Amino acid sequence: MSDVYVVGADLIKFGRYPDRTPAQLGAEATLLALDDAGLNIGDVGALYAASTFNAASMIAQQILFQIGQTGIPCVNVSNACAAGATAFREAFIAVKSGLYDVVVAVGAEKNPAGMLSAGNSEGPPPEGLFGSGTMPALFAEAGVLHAAAYGTTLEQFAKVSVKNHHHSTMNPKAMYQKETPLEEVLASEMIAWPLTKLMCSVNVDGAAATVLVSERKARELGLGRAVRVRGSALASDPWESRNGVLMNTNSVTRLAVATAYEMAGVGPQDLNLVELHDCFATAELLHYENLGLCGEGEAGALIDSGDTALGGRIPVNVSGGLLSKGHPIGATGVANIVEIVMHLRGEAGARQVAGARLGLAHVLGFGVGVGAAGVHILERA
Amino acid sequence: MSDVYVVGADLIKFGRYPDRTPAQLGAEATLLALDDAGLNIGDVGALYAASTFNAASMIAQQILFQIGQTGIPCVNVSNACAAGATAFREAFIAVKSGLYDVVVAVGAEKNPAGMLSAGNSEGPPPEGLFGSGTMPALFAEAGVLHAAAYGTTLEQFAKVSVKNHHHSTMNPKAMYQKETPLEEVLASEMIAWPLTKLMCSVNVDGAAATVLVSERKARELGLGRAVRVRGSALASDPWESRNGVLMNTNSVTRLAVATAYEMAGVGPQDLNLVELHDCFATAELLHYENLGLCGEGEAGALIDSGDTALGGRIPVNVSGGLLSKGHPIGATGVANIVEIVMHLRGEAGARQVAGARLGLAHVLGFGVGVGAAGVHILERA
Repeated sequence: MSDVYVVGADLIKFGRYPDRTPAQLGAEATLLALDDAGLNIGDVGALYAASTFNAASMIAQQILFQIGQTGIPCVNVSNACAAGATAFREAFIAVKSGLYDVVVAVGAEKNPAGMLSAGNSEGPPPEGLFGSGTMPALFAEAGVLHAAAYGTTLEQFAKVSVKNHHHSTMNPKAMYQKETPLEEVLASEMIAWPLTKLMCSVNVDGAAATVLVSERKARELGLGRAVRVRGSALASDPWESRNGVLMNTNSVTRLAVATAYEMAGVGPQDLNLVELHDCFATAELLHYENLGLCGEGEAGALIDSGDTALGGRIPVNVSGGLLSKGHPIGATGVANIVEIVMHLRGEAGARQVAGARLGLAHVLGFGVGVGAAGVHILERA
Repeated sequence: MSDVYVVGADLIKFGRYPDRTPAQLGAEATLLALDDAGLNIGDVGALYAASTFNAASMIAQQILFQIGQTGIPCVNVSNACAAGATAFREAFIAVKSGLYDVVVAVGAEKNPAGMLSAGNSEGPPPEGLFGSGTMPALFAEAGVLHAAAYGTTLEQFAKVSVKNHHHSTMNPKAMYQKETPLEEVLASEMIAWPLTKLMCSVNVDGAAATVLVSERKARELGLGRAVRVRGSALASDPWESRNGVLMNTNSVTRLAVATAYEMAGVGPQDLNLVELHDCFATAELLHYENLGLCGEGEAGALIDSGDTALGGRIPVNVSGGLLSKGHPIGATGVANIVEIVMHLRGEAGARQVAGARLGLAHVLGFGVGVGAAGVHILERA
């Protein structure tokens, strides 16, 4: 089987686009990624589009309607917050199968207004009306359980938001470029204890795209800026995830990451940077442990140490993450792969992780009682 | 690359299931297909679920929730009426990639009540309220254009319904098992000229599933009942499809079928049976020409000849088709593959196409101004 390479990767600035359709956002990201690869839509053999809220509109075909109706296979993927990773992985498999030399994976989303319980958005959070059972409530509970088991503090959770907001001051494509001190995070509106509004991901519109190619095509284009996909895993809930919220949140991620590490033949100690699914500040700490970045119960100490900040041992969410770059649901899984690619190429500007060779991108998606986790491990070619 | 085989295929009876969820229907079909293959969910490496209206619910994971949470990758596919073929094709690619030996493709749907403009359903057709721009109007127009160009008659369109209703009298899994004479088809309510209610597909709930395996696994299981996937194509609108409705309807199918014939190394003259997307009676005649079963403008003569009825030269929609078996949108593309598999195995009972060795399954899906066509060519192993 051929190795698979990413030769194009880009995203649009995350924000609010009231006058544009999700497909228009996806088309712009696709053109940016193709341009980055030095290719055009006529070179593309298949297109995979992730859009949790807009897949049913045939968004992949709508994107081609914008940029060139070449008649290629279009697949519209839905998988909650893991849709982007799923589309990328289907593109990876399509190249791996030998059927295509060049495949695009794009994620594009306009989240329904007020539907998500993310913070930072305009208007009152729906939690105020509905109480528990919402995403903030789920991840608040997971945080509370972690705190009960390991003594994790409110300040430690809040520091995740401070760090990621700091990171995004260096990311011009992020929703926010503004330092957000600990006091401000703690003083913002309480959504679901311990989660204040600034500890919830940002409900934004956005799109991101990647171009995946076969080894043959990568060599033809030149391996200089190519990035190799070393591990690709998608997991659904293992059986034990029925045993409560904390297990549910964690077990599906642990299954995906173990599979990806095994496929790549690497472990957490080999990584130079991680983009993980910080849909809420509590989630980032849980995933430190799920991804093996620290031992069980040590996530609070890890954020305190500064090791996951830019310049630290293993920088996490240098893009700003979902908390500050923003979380356009179906686009998120592609966008965090784009971020890893930029660092492995040494093209991440002010937020560049020096000498990055190996990076991991993780997303976690939940439906009603079921979920998905996607993990990709990428390496400088 | 490994050849890919279908070793399990089954469906539930299409009908109305007001007390069951789409996932429950999909779970039943999956269990039937696994049982048919002599496998169980623990053998399955990945699961692809098509559900145009229910993909966003993570229906693949919901199906596993019913039958066993093994943690495998779950992909939820949306692609209008082509979703089932798309899921099957993604499963085919996943096996082809060498990543998995056993993959399930399942389609499951409960269509929204009254949303579809299909006939035979309870309640007034929405066309009465909205006029043109609906699916019946689109395929009515395509029929009118065909009639204007080639002199196709109302009776010829209506004969498609007579034939497919006759076929489904022999299919216990079809929605209807009732002869429907020409006079009854013509006398039923006019939806959009020339389409009467009995010339529109049936809005039903349903689910169908297939088990795809690698050549290695197929040989291990025994090739006796295995069916080989010889051609697999998915197309989106080629550029010329912007030139009006008739072209739009036809060009995407023609692109897919040409690709599938080329991949399989066969032509229409080699086929023993066809399941094609008779969402409306007009569509079946258009697709006779699109698939190359007859020359341009000869579809009316072909239905008159009886060659596409069971016992004829090239039986079409022996299952009863969407017109009488029913059209649970996301399930349809899997169900028509199941029908082909049954015939290639010689297990189709009273409606068996004698000596069938090679069959073709086709679906066509439309969104707003864009579409998808899926074509699979299957052969007795």
